[in-house]
Amino acid sequence: MTGIAGAEIERLIQLLARLPGLGPRSARRAALHLIRKREQLLAPLAEAMQVACQRVVTCATCGNIDTRDPCTICCDGRRDASTLVVVESVSDLWALERAAIMRAPYHVLGGTLSPLDGIGPEELNLANLSARVSEGRFHEIILAVNATVDGQTTAHYITDLLSPYGVKITRLAHGVPVGGELDYLDEGTLAAAMRQRTAF
Amino acid sequence: MTGIAGAEIERLIQLLARLPGLGPRSARRAALHLIRKREQLLAPLAEAMQVACQRVVTCATCGNIDTRDPCTICCDGRRDASTLVVVESVSDLWALERAAIMRAPYHVLGGTLSPLDGIGPEELNLANLSARVSEGRFHEIILAVNATVDGQTTAHYITDLLSPYGVKITRLAHGVPVGGELDYLDEGTLAAAMRQRTAF
Repeated sequence: MTGIAGAEIERLIQLLARLPGLGPRSARRAALHLIRKREQLLAPLAEAMQVACQRVVTCATCGNIDTRDPCTICCDGRRDASTLVVVESVSDLWALERAAIMRAPYHVLGGTLSPLDGIGPEELNLANLSARVSEGRFHEIILAVNATVDGQTTAHYITDLLSPYGVKITRLAHGVPVGGELDYLDEGTLAAAMRQRTAF
Repeated sequence: MTGIAGAEIERLIQLLARLPGLGPRSARRAALHLIRKREQLLAPLAEAMQVACQRVVTCATCGNIDTRDPCTICCDGRRDASTLVVVESVSDLWALERAAIMRAPYHVLGGTLSPLDGIGPEELNLANLSARVSEGRFHEIILAVNATVDGQTTAHYITDLLSPYGVKITRLAHGVPVGGELDYLDEGTLAAAMRQRTAF
């Protein structure tokens, strides 16, 4: 490809290839698609990226991203202010918001503890979490972290961290996914679902 | 999602979801990735898109895209000017250039004849092809169109179109892909490979 399509197109392809989910081949397809749909897609997308670049900020309260600080969720007076949902990442926050089951404020950790990757408590948004909880406004902290080893390690760490404040700490239930078939589930999930069975 | 992350982020996600290869979920992942890597990726990509939007043009000679017209390939004096390679799309041109076997100028049709989709000869870059061939500079026209029904229909149409000029018209060989296993090939390909067998 080098030198046959102009350095500008080449650079566009290289940058697109760095998006998650796009490899070199799909980046070329995406670049051609963008150039073909210049008015409908390329120009608006360039504009939207510029705007996001200039205006998106991290909420100093909860760690969410938004174009305002405090973020829309932190400013939302209709939410249950006595509960705090702790999540690993903004994408987890979005997933919970799409499910629309719990209207409460969030706290985004920005990752999980992972000693092997050199991620200790200082790298996460934890000091801020202690500060929020210490104000005594929350009655329940829901640890909505992933059911991975790192996620559970982080949950244990947070439980210790928040123990001085005497707040109720809960975590998401383990069990069979809705629509899931037992045959395809791992033993750990089946064991958890059996242990935590509920009255029918 | 609506209203929880700011209209600007929402818009970025919606536009990203219109790229080929990205759905709503991967568009959200891409948007978060971009916002996380604001300086390294989001800003440069916004800039690269702006530049592409302003500077990429279609070559009036061959239909290729480039930031100059005539394009880099048409201006390349080291290419075999007696041969013309006809391709359906810019992505096919790029694929042939990556293979780097034939250094000749191209002619990009911009699609294939497809009566069912309402694409007739007028929708393709064909008038320009006749004009180029009529100048008598080319000794061979290689129809490097896809081995699909539409591609082959287009190849036949072009053969008729160019017959008055008495130029040699060739097409790509059909056969077993290099590294391919016979067991996985369709009967049409096997029949073509057998018919067009060559001396060992």
